[in-house]
Amino acid sequence: MTSFDVVLDLSVEDAELAVRAALAEHGFGVLTEIDMAAAFKAKLGVDRAPLKILGACNPGFAYEALLIDPAASLALPCNVVLEGVGSSTRVAVADPRDLMRDIELSELAEEVATRLQEVVATLREISPRLP
Amino acid sequence: MTSFDVVLDLSVEDAELAVRAALAEHGFGVLTEIDMAAAFKAKLGVDRAPLKILGACNPGFAYEALLIDPAASLALPCNVVLEGVGSSTRVAVADPRDLMRDIELSELAEEVATRLQEVVATLREISPRLP
Repeated sequence: MTSFDVVLDLSVEDAELAVRAALAEHGFGVLTEIDMAAAFKAKLGVDRAPLKILGACNPGFAYEALLIDPAASLALPCNVVLEGVGSSTRVAVADPRDLMRDIELSELAEEVATRLQEVVATLREISPRLP
Repeated sequence: MTSFDVVLDLSVEDAELAVRAALAEHGFGVLTEIDMAAAFKAKLGVDRAPLKILGACNPGFAYEALLIDPAASLALPCNVVLEGVGSSTRVAVADPRDLMRDIELSELAEEVATRLQEVVATLREISPRLP
C-alpha cells in the first residue's frame, strides 16, 4: 500500500501532537488511536520501536463516500502511522486512492488524497528533514 | 474492496456482542471501535442507520506482517463493519488479501483471510439468515 511520508525531528509523542494539529487544520478528526508497540508488548511480550496508528477521518468526505458506495466503510478511517526511528519519527499517511479503488469513488479519493498531501506538506514545514 | 458478509437477525448491539465473541474465538482482538452513525450525527447533523466499525487484529499475524513489510501498518487493523438493516444487522469483514496486496504478504494474507472466513462461518451458525 502506498503512502504520503515525512520524517519529523520529533519524538513520537511530539510528532503525534503535530500530526493531530495538521490533520485538524485540514479538516480531519482522529477517530481511533492504537499503540501497536504496547499491544505487541502486552500480547506477545516483544519489545519494538514505538508504533502508533491514528485513524483519521473527514466526516463530510466519509459521508459522501458512503452515499456513493456503502462498502466504503471497509476503508474507513484513513491510517496515519507514526513510527519511532532513533530520535525521529516517520509519519506515513495511507493513500486513500489505494483504499478506495472503485471507479465510482475515484474522484472523491483524488480529493481526499490532495487534502492529505496538504497535511504532509504542513508537517514538512515544521521539520527540516525529508524522507 | 471485497468483504466476507453475513446478515444476522440481531440488533446492532447484540450483533456486536456476537461478532466480538466470534473474533475472540478465532484469535482476534478488537483494537478500535467507531460509531460512525454517532459521528455523522455529531459532526454533520445527519441521521442514518446504525453503522459501527470495529478494528480487529490478531497480534501474532500483525507482528509477522510488519516483519515482512513495515508498510503493513497502513493496513491494520482489519475492519469489521456492522450496519443496521431494519431489525437485522449486516456484518462485513474486510478481505485482508485486498488490504495486503504486496506479493511478500500474500501467503500471510491468505492465512488471515481463511481465519476471518471462519469467524463469518461461526456467525452464520448462530443466525438462519444468509446474505
